[in-house]
Amino acid sequence: MNENNDDINNLNTPCVLVLDSVVRNNCIKMNERAASLGVNVRPHMKTHKTIEIGKYQFEENKNLNKSRGIIVSTLSEGKFFSKEFKDILYATPIAPNKVKDAYQLHLSIDRLNVMFDNIEHLKSMVDYAIKNPNEFQKKWSVFLKIDCGYHRAGADPKLQSTTDLVELIVNGEYNQYFQFQGIYSHSGHSYKCQTPTDIKNLAIEEARVTGDYGKKLKSLGYKVDTVSIGSTPVCSHLPHNLLSEYGVNEIHPGNYTFYDQMQYELGNCKLEDIGVHVLATIVSIYPERNELLVDAGSLALSSDPGCTHLRDLKVINNFGIVYNDTNLRIVAPSQEVSKIQSTNQSPIDFSKYKIGSKIRIIPNHSCLTAAMFSDYHVINNDNQIINSFKPNKHW
Amino acid sequence: MNENNDDINNLNTPCVLVLDSVVRNNCIKMNERAASLGVNVRPHMKTHKTIEIGKYQFEENKNLNKSRGIIVSTLSEGKFFSKEFKDILYATPIAPNKVKDAYQLHLSIDRLNVMFDNIEHLKSMVDYAIKNPNEFQKKWSVFLKIDCGYHRAGADPKLQSTTDLVELIVNGEYNQYFQFQGIYSHSGHSYKCQTPTDIKNLAIEEARVTGDYGKKLKSLGYKVDTVSIGSTPVCSHLPHNLLSEYGVNEIHPGNYTFYDQMQYELGNCKLEDIGVHVLATIVSIYPERNELLVDAGSLALSSDPGCTHLRDLKVINNFGIVYNDTNLRIVAPSQEVSKIQSTNQSPIDFSKYKIGSKIRIIPNHSCLTAAMFSDYHVINNDNQIINSFKPNKHW
Repeated sequence: MNENNDDINNLNTPCVLVLDSVVRNNCIKMNERAASLGVNVRPHMKTHKTIEIGKYQFEENKNLNKSRGIIVSTLSEGKFFSKEFKDILYATPIAPNKVKDAYQLHLSIDRLNVMFDNIEHLKSMVDYAIKNPNEFQKKWSVFLKIDCGYHRAGADPKLQSTTDLVELIVNGEYNQYFQFQGIYSHSGHSYKCQTPTDIKNLAIEEARVTGDYGKKLKSLGYKVDTVSIGSTPVCSHLPHNLLSEYGVNEIHPGNYTFYDQMQYELGNCKLEDIGVHVLATIVSIYPERNELLVDAGSLALSSDPGCTHLRDLKVINNFGIVYNDTNLRIVAPSQEVSKIQSTNQSPIDFSKYKIGSKIRIIPNHSCLTAAMFSDYHVINNDNQIINSFKPNKHW
Repeated sequence: MNENNDDINNLNTPCVLVLDSVVRNNCIKMNERAASLGVNVRPHMKTHKTIEIGKYQFEENKNLNKSRGIIVSTLSEGKFFSKEFKDILYATPIAPNKVKDAYQLHLSIDRLNVMFDNIEHLKSMVDYAIKNPNEFQKKWSVFLKIDCGYHRAGADPKLQSTTDLVELIVNGEYNQYFQFQGIYSHSGHSYKCQTPTDIKNLAIEEARVTGDYGKKLKSLGYKVDTVSIGSTPVCSHLPHNLLSEYGVNEIHPGNYTFYDQMQYELGNCKLEDIGVHVLATIVSIYPERNELLVDAGSLALSSDPGCTHLRDLKVINNFGIVYNDTNLRIVAPSQEVSKIQSTNQSPIDFSKYKIGSKIRIIPNHSCLTAAMFSDYHVINNDNQIINSFKPNKHW
């Protein structure tokens, strides 16, 4: 509402603040880490969904990924980012109802890479090619999604049927339709780890499972350009011999642009590395209950409970903490308001936290929180608004 | 994407379906229930956020509320609904940074009623009136929010300081600025009840606490036009003597338009009363793990865990169930995809659930789920798309 004014205290609340230099620094650090290991970063766009931060993920030439390949979580994101990026990986196994749109996007850029983990995905793409012979001008560009132990998506690399899919598109009857790019895994189970050591071990495990399967495919004579692993926790604890020992040549983190309370609790970032805050206003105070009420509820913060498995039983309910006063936490988000209590029951300073005071909330899960907003207010280190980024929305 | 086609199977997924006759019937039944008790329904708009369903909430003249008074959860909603409704209650204690916008809205319709539960709310409204003497043409219309035991917002009716606030605006130095409309409570703790009997008892408790305070104010000589209680669970189990015994003359439910899995688990509706489903596509299948993967994740369903306190320890993870096959449930939503398992571990029928098959998901919490979408596809009893409703978004 007050975009002409650069003072965040005049913003309509709830709204989201993006800390520009923090986000840029997160991007640079991830790129430097990967470059030191000799691997590409194929950054995921899903956390921020903005062209501007997508560019930050390649800034200063620290990213070895010269094709500026990116990953998106929806086809809507794919179309949105195609204005700037021409090598896009759509990271969900392709459903038949998305084949047509995916192929149109593929034709419009260098390549839209799509995922398969079942023969039905291949069949529906072949079916499209056969039914649209005039339109089918270039092969589908595909990655095999493999399950590295997360058990959400991906084919089992131990099964012969998985390798049979690769054979089918490389040497078999489907070879005229497909360009095989490589393999991809996602270690989402890293968010359930207890300690940084657990994450480190999981990183080794993902590198081994995915890397070994890449080696196996190569030993069978297949060309495997890309062996890609990831999740922000694993990408924060990569083994030094990722490329030399395991043959993994790409990582694909996403959340690291913003980080959040979960990444902090897992030990993957410091509080000052968190690049997104929700600005809220205290709408009432209840000194008799030692509580505040703010105008940011589930529709501003999301209702993700975060890493409850890492918390003391007394502080399980923690849907965000207050920036610069991390003893204060969101304990109960309703749709449009949330209750704030102090974790250790110490008295809240009501001379500081008054009706009308602004607070900044560090979210549990920045991917979900950022997605709640249509505009990001981008601020500098002096808390002045320097830009507005508009994320892609919906599907 | 295929709005010209009335077949839901051609819709881009994920998307939301609104079951027109179910929603209308929910509205009629709530109005009939209230009318039989002789009380108004002041319907809440926050669950659906659409003008069309707002009108359904007054259809067939079953609602005794002749001023067509409604409730909204944000000022953005207030402005949106002011096109159709002229008596609006903004249900969050008014923060100083929202006073100006609230007063503009108040001037533009019959009345915007705002909430107070602390003297600071009154002070900021008086401050605005004093600083804008030419603009201040009509008194602020206000409700006192009282705490009926939920302990989220509201002044304590047992404290003299609460009644002092009423005195201040009715007879005291602030009387030139305010029109006192009545009192309002919200029994959000009804969502933590174990059984319908518990909810019934809570309804009596809210009616007693709020109704008694209304009687007290009247006995002190104050005019109290409205004594309003609510929450969909409580409004589903109202005592027959709500008006005659307790003096409560208004209820303000919202979720009842759509209902959801939580309301079903609490015993407030049947599965067939749930008026909103998320349509999703199966993007992959994993027979070896007896699992499906669908393209509706936390950004389509929300990550609200629902009424975990009512569930068997084995089925705590339930972020939505499959319509017409309620043994299948969302066990793990990620940002854009979710895993589905069968609750009793029985084998999923993979001849029915194939890659590309559509499923309809009954959400845990319809208020949060509906808010994830920019368009509602409205369907009739034959599952044909008959309309598109566009909800108010953001703040």
